[in-house]
Amino acid sequence: MQLPTYDDVIAAAARLEGHAHRTPVLRSTTADEQWGARFFFKCENFQRMGAFKFRGAFNALSKFDATQRKGGVIAFSSGNHAQAIALSARLLSMPAVIVMPKDAPAAKVAATKGYGAEVVMYDRFTEDREALTRRLAQERGMTMIPPYDHPDVLTGQGTAVKELIEETGPLDHLFVCLGGGGLLSGSALSARALAPGCKVYGVEPEAGNDGQQSFQAGKIVHIETPKTIADGAQTQHLGGYTFGIIKRDVNDIFTVTDDQLVEAMRFFAERMKMVVEPTGCLAFAGAIAAREAIAGQRVGIVISGGNVDLSRYAALLA
Amino acid sequence: MQLPTYDDVIAAAARLEGHAHRTPVLRSTTADEQWGARFFFKCENFQRMGAFKFRGAFNALSKFDATQRKGGVIAFSSGNHAQAIALSARLLSMPAVIVMPKDAPAAKVAATKGYGAEVVMYDRFTEDREALTRRLAQERGMTMIPPYDHPDVLTGQGTAVKELIEETGPLDHLFVCLGGGGLLSGSALSARALAPGCKVYGVEPEAGNDGQQSFQAGKIVHIETPKTIADGAQTQHLGGYTFGIIKRDVNDIFTVTDDQLVEAMRFFAERMKMVVEPTGCLAFAGAIAAREAIAGQRVGIVISGGNVDLSRYAALLA
Repeated sequence: MQLPTYDDVIAAAARLEGHAHRTPVLRSTTADEQWGARFFFKCENFQRMGAFKFRGAFNALSKFDATQRKGGVIAFSSGNHAQAIALSARLLSMPAVIVMPKDAPAAKVAATKGYGAEVVMYDRFTEDREALTRRLAQERGMTMIPPYDHPDVLTGQGTAVKELIEETGPLDHLFVCLGGGGLLSGSALSARALAPGCKVYGVEPEAGNDGQQSFQAGKIVHIETPKTIADGAQTQHLGGYTFGIIKRDVNDIFTVTDDQLVEAMRFFAERMKMVVEPTGCLAFAGAIAAREAIAGQRVGIVISGGNVDLSRYAALLA
Repeated sequence: MQLPTYDDVIAAAARLEGHAHRTPVLRSTTADEQWGARFFFKCENFQRMGAFKFRGAFNALSKFDATQRKGGVIAFSSGNHAQAIALSARLLSMPAVIVMPKDAPAAKVAATKGYGAEVVMYDRFTEDREALTRRLAQERGMTMIPPYDHPDVLTGQGTAVKELIEETGPLDHLFVCLGGGGLLSGSALSARALAPGCKVYGVEPEAGNDGQQSFQAGKIVHIETPKTIADGAQTQHLGGYTFGIIKRDVNDIFTVTDDQLVEAMRFFAERMKMVVEPTGCLAFAGAIAAREAIAGQRVGIVISGGNVDLSRYAALLA
């Protein structure tokens, strides 16, 4: 397996130019004083469709040839990847099918349809979504784009940390959320190239530490779907591409509890005036937990997204 | 009365350099599509202490002479002005006294004390806060800085729109929240200088339309403290400086209901991932209401702040 490189991240950045937002890097004097480090927050919650996922999806779809564009794209997801693919397909004028469970939140179904994609429902208890997706792809001549384990997806995600370090200069530490590893592996490529001395960490929900287990075991460990409020990190295993980069370029993997995520979420709302989804709080929660190791140093935090149902968000804040 | 000019805004910007955040200007494709205009959101909710008020307070305190610095600053406020004065005084190493009602929210008292200010409580029902403040100022040799009707305060506030238009280029319309008029008058100075064709509007809560009444009558109208969720716009009247500029440089003043503020607040949270306090929603709510007049044009929106108690915010979102 040929792993992608930072050159592929550079090429992805050129494709995203004028399409993805160059999201702001925010500072917080309160955070710096409270936890004794210098934090730089890369705010992908302000990215198009509300999460970094747009970067990888748009990059992957931009590389389609004429035949692929005509056939369009298919993906299975009930989360941010669905909206990222739907929006990217609309911008690139190609058909998109998103395969979603029948019990997916109505708001997510509506948002995906709102971006112009066709939504195909399946029954989580009786149907195999991967088989269904493969069948549809073949029948309709569509190209399947997975949510994380794809070179074009992960190098697209890597453009966020490229922008971050270009803006801040070298960092001592970088914390990134970890689900399937698309964002973490892409971020590691950028950090290794732009700030070779920077330590790169993945942060997972404690209930779903397959990444940590895999990192320690040196091979991909599979787990049951974990119970956590970080719905974007409920993955069961890393992928071949993402793990290949993570085991080579990442320094360590930490875990945090749901309570720690809520603490970070409340801080973001109260002091930084940002809506951050539970998964998006992983990186900062991990940095807070590791504060002794980062004291007085320059720390990059990737806030991955802000897509959370308002009533759920209100309940978590209250 | 000599009104300040855009030159004073330029001087204020120089004083704020390196102290105030240059807050981001965010775009929202969803907002543009939903309301048919091109919106540029100047996000002062990301300003230090969470609101534009830092600009005016820091500018005013920066101009103190040696005697004034030694004596320190005194202000009466239970809102963002209190925190702005407290933080600015700390940064400039001078004493600060904030006069607050005994029934001010505990969180605001704590935040003000957290910035190092001394808080003096008074009874809203039996004591005259202005007389108390004047007496304390005289006893302690402190300089009183009012929340809006002061040349150094309003020209400090004007630096936000200076930054906005420098970044976006000319705008067709600019919407700004209106309480006592510090932000609106300063914004009007910047807009007139940098985008002469830009129409400038103030937006007030419907329940507290003293500014609209004053604008129409050509003189300052006083009202009872209005009942509205926009607690930063519960002023009873404009000031001599602010009204002098507003009647000359502002094109019109609109009002919106509390329900319209909540609609804008939910949009900011759900689609732009930002926490905006009710007062900070005035400008965008006004622009939405005026959407026919701004169709297809370039519209600046000043988001004034994001300081809202989390439990109250959660209740408004839910």
